[in-house]
Amino acid sequence: MDAATVGLAVSTVIFALRPGENGHVATLWIPLVRRITEPFNGQWALPGGFLRSDESLELAAGRNLFETTALEPAYLEQLFAFGEVDRAPGGRVVSVVYWALVRPDLADQAAVGENVQWFPADDLPDLAFDHNSIVDYALWRLRSKMEYSRIAHALLGETFTLAELREVHEAVRGKPIDPANFRRHVEHSEALVATEERRTGTKHRPPRLYRYNTQFELADNGPLTRRPSGAGKE
Amino acid sequence: MDAATVGLAVSTVIFALRPGENGHVATLWIPLVRRITEPFNGQWALPGGFLRSDESLELAAGRNLFETTALEPAYLEQLFAFGEVDRAPGGRVVSVVYWALVRPDLADQAAVGENVQWFPADDLPDLAFDHNSIVDYALWRLRSKMEYSRIAHALLGETFTLAELREVHEAVRGKPIDPANFRRHVEHSEALVATEERRTGTKHRPPRLYRYNTQFELADNGPLTRRPSGAGKE
Repeated sequence: MDAATVGLAVSTVIFALRPGENGHVATLWIPLVRRITEPFNGQWALPGGFLRSDESLELAAGRNLFETTALEPAYLEQLFAFGEVDRAPGGRVVSVVYWALVRPDLADQAAVGENVQWFPADDLPDLAFDHNSIVDYALWRLRSKMEYSRIAHALLGETFTLAELREVHEAVRGKPIDPANFRRHVEHSEALVATEERRTGTKHRPPRLYRYNTQFELADNGPLTRRPSGAGKE
Repeated sequence: MDAATVGLAVSTVIFALRPGENGHVATLWIPLVRRITEPFNGQWALPGGFLRSDESLELAAGRNLFETTALEPAYLEQLFAFGEVDRAPGGRVVSVVYWALVRPDLADQAAVGENVQWFPADDLPDLAFDHNSIVDYALWRLRSKMEYSRIAHALLGETFTLAELREVHEAVRGKPIDPANFRRHVEHSEALVATEERRTGTKHRPPRLYRYNTQFELADNGPLTRRPSGAGKE
């Protein structure tokens, strides 16, 4: 057994907010790719593949995303390197996994290939390899990060109403949040700035638009300095 | 260029608290290994090497630590996978890096090989590859994590005085902390529990010993369930 027998793959967990199955409540969805080779031929898996020797890990993750959804990520971060000895039958493979957020308005239009399909993140089929537990960990990271950073805007756009922001938090947490408590919480936080604009629409009194305070730093952007276009623009 | 030309290495940044160079103030130290092959022959580098196909990433990191210091880690966590295309001259290498904490009382006795030497973490020579920036990132992660978790005990042992705990925080932050403020801060936190024991010694009034509240969870232990002996015992 020598080093040359270890393969290195990059996979990406891509989250978007999409209408729920009942058409009303937004939920988190992720795109999966149906495998067309062994092992796990015919099963759904995270988009990914072996790392090319001429691209960085982050570029490979961005390419996964683009090839699956034709989108650029609004947020892209390394999740973890998964390397248990027995995680891939028939050969040793270490997977460096990224997670990404894409905008729902863009995700609705995302080009989806013949073997790509979106699934609700908390109701997935049995995936290939250890990909179910990888998605679970990515969900946990997204939920933790939502608490103390301003990554929600990667699912929303530059400006948003408090109701839209609450809807993102509800979708990520998977449970309803009291609107009055939520308003109190974010209005006391330094992370949000009220703009002079309002969401135009059909309502009698259009709601105010907010944006994130860009003075407020994310807790962990990783050690990266070079990023694919569109990634990590906070 | 194909997948087979990408090498996969595992390296470990090992932190211990040791007496400072003036003999009084404790500082963070890390062990480095002098390279005896090209590239960077003769320069200091993080302990590590190519992943063996029969061991997990975390076991490889624990082995790095044991082979360098003859110690088991008190804390071991994956830091990041570094994969820029040009980071290793002469070949493509992705490094999955772990960081570890070891107890100072053990670190003092640590067996150190011919090509191993301890250095102050904030005063390192020019290291091989991108290892200086890897250590910088590991220091940043340690400092961030110290703020909101109870990993300090991995540098201390099961019980400790408030002065000992403050000394760890001072060493990690690299600056003095007001003792009264520190005492107020930790006494209001749920993370610490006062024991009935006191540090025996020469003092007139021996100081009380504290321990961490094990009900209080670490923020991120990663998705790992299988760990090398001694790692992640929080």
